[in-house]
Amino acid sequence: MEGAAPRGKPTLKRPVETVRRERDGITILDQTALPYRTLTRHLASVEAVAEAIRSMQVRGAPLIGATAAFGVAIALVSRPTTEALDAAVDLLGRTRPTAVNLHWALNRMREHLIGLSDADRPTAAWCEAEAIAAEDAATCEAIGEHGRVIVEQLSHQRSGPVRVLTHCNAGWLATCGIGTALAPVFAAHAHGARVEVIVSETRPRNQGLLTAWELREAGVPHILIADNAAGYLLATGKADAVIVGADRIAANGDTANKVGTWLKALAAHAAGVPFYVAAPSSTMDFSCPDGAGITIEARAAEEVCLVRGLDAAGEVVDVRLAPEGARVVNPAFDITPAHLVTAFITERGLIAPPALAEAFPERIR
Amino acid sequence: MEGAAPRGKPTLKRPVETVRRERDGITILDQTALPYRTLTRHLASVEAVAEAIRSMQVRGAPLIGATAAFGVAIALVSRPTTEALDAAVDLLGRTRPTAVNLHWALNRMREHLIGLSDADRPTAAWCEAEAIAAEDAATCEAIGEHGRVIVEQLSHQRSGPVRVLTHCNAGWLATCGIGTALAPVFAAHAHGARVEVIVSETRPRNQGLLTAWELREAGVPHILIADNAAGYLLATGKADAVIVGADRIAANGDTANKVGTWLKALAAHAAGVPFYVAAPSSTMDFSCPDGAGITIEARAAEEVCLVRGLDAAGEVVDVRLAPEGARVVNPAFDITPAHLVTAFITERGLIAPPALAEAFPERIR
Repeated sequence: MEGAAPRGKPTLKRPVETVRRERDGITILDQTALPYRTLTRHLASVEAVAEAIRSMQVRGAPLIGATAAFGVAIALVSRPTTEALDAAVDLLGRTRPTAVNLHWALNRMREHLIGLSDADRPTAAWCEAEAIAAEDAATCEAIGEHGRVIVEQLSHQRSGPVRVLTHCNAGWLATCGIGTALAPVFAAHAHGARVEVIVSETRPRNQGLLTAWELREAGVPHILIADNAAGYLLATGKADAVIVGADRIAANGDTANKVGTWLKALAAHAAGVPFYVAAPSSTMDFSCPDGAGITIEARAAEEVCLVRGLDAAGEVVDVRLAPEGARVVNPAFDITPAHLVTAFITERGLIAPPALAEAFPERIR
Repeated sequence: MEGAAPRGKPTLKRPVETVRRERDGITILDQTALPYRTLTRHLASVEAVAEAIRSMQVRGAPLIGATAAFGVAIALVSRPTTEALDAAVDLLGRTRPTAVNLHWALNRMREHLIGLSDADRPTAAWCEAEAIAAEDAATCEAIGEHGRVIVEQLSHQRSGPVRVLTHCNAGWLATCGIGTALAPVFAAHAHGARVEVIVSETRPRNQGLLTAWELREAGVPHILIADNAAGYLLATGKADAVIVGADRIAANGDTANKVGTWLKALAAHAAGVPFYVAAPSSTMDFSCPDGAGITIEARAAEEVCLVRGLDAAGEVVDVRLAPEGARVVNPAFDITPAHLVTAFITERGLIAPPALAEAFPERIR
């Protein structure tokens, strides 16, 4: 390790955990109240967990997976039967159609628990859910370590801070660890690199505001932009790299991520700026040969028609932009074709799209 | 004209004029109150006109030009000197740096008035401003007639309505006539074609809501989307054409338009969907050889941090998305390179980018 930068855990000031076991339930951070209020909720039934995922109180592909795993454990507390297990997996699996970590975590829970006796299942379920959460945190660390090399290399080419453009929120709020897309930023920042994040607002749900809040809490410099401005910044040399997360990655590297990601990838490509997807292998779905096989979730019109913010008195209010009954199309994700992805930042390092399946052979079924 | 579709003025239900002379001033529609309130304002000084343009109470490149011309006339009412003329042109010219129609109209006013006596100037100024407004309306009609052919041709290839994606507002609110980007839609609709408009919200100022309001008033079917969703719709074959307006077109066809336009042009190109820019020749600036010469206006952070809407009681309120003092970059426009433009829809017909200067030789100085 001579000459290498010091390695170690990035220090991240994380004000509250995204999910944790508490008695026979879980306590989650309600992300629909952020960045205006820091609210936690105790969920004591699998139905409550499913609703928290559906309503996006819990969001971010890796965190959805871990939370769903806890949901299975909760379901088995009072009724540890095979039927209850299957019902929980089914209920939770129907909450969000695009994020594949959800199905990955549910499959893992089911495979682990199906052969056990009813008596053994509850404890085993909590242990496995805790393991999924802990592994996610470790994966985020690894993504951070591999990804900070990108930031550090760019920093040698610049006198000012490295400017990383991101979309949506793929920080610690989206995971059980330090995040995916933001992990390289947090890791590089912790190791002394000068880095600045350009935060795309991410309409309609404004998850960019969550990213800005996270970065503010962590003391990382950042700039907020309207989604529309990403092209201008890329075209005019004001961003050095794009790093986004993912909700599902097909075998060929086509990537489903928050709607608007493809537009940023196109602009980065046109501007000659590298475009990275940071994601754990649990996001990879090699049963999909390419992006055409990925279901894109359509969400409610009201997400576009209503906006949440603070009024003059500092109260959290929803204001209406468009009349009730306005026709709206609101896809939650889009597909970025693999040829626009410079590399995937994974727990096993930087992987070029064509090498993805080779790097994660155990994900091929 | 045998076999041709019947020609005639499209009937557009326009609830209020965007600008009109009233006594020694003008009455404008305050577009910052739309779509929630229909407010008009009387402006009786050149300073008030300049402030209305700067604050975007009056917006849309062609309308800014006509309103600025009226501003010159107002300035000359009480003081018809050469100095007052130059001061008015200077003051109004500094309100918005990107839209070139502003400078085109001010130059035209100055050239028309500079050689006249002080006594003749006021009446001549009002006449010339009225002429600019009337010509703009006629230009919009012509753009509508030329552009509706595109919609009608697409309608022969589809059983359902032709789906035109637009960005920002380039409808009647942006002009003294039926609009630029929406003119082909209004004209085709008036002639019986089935057409539907996909309206991009256009953050940060949400001018898409103005477009949706216009279309609702005119009875044209439309769908509102978040800006981020435009790529998904184009990629999945849910839009047949993109038509946008322009704020400045360089000699080579590079086009400055509302920020986010380039992202839509890239997506349209990748998806094989034609991308049209509808604009009058007053938007062309052949003194700029290409887009690199176009100044991009940077606007205030508060445009991104605050959003206007209706609260639960139906009151118009601004809510805060991001804390005061948040770092924001807010470019108002971006540049779409000419190679992404299928054709310009102008008052002289459909013009391919390389033929632009040839089609409007009088715009070369």
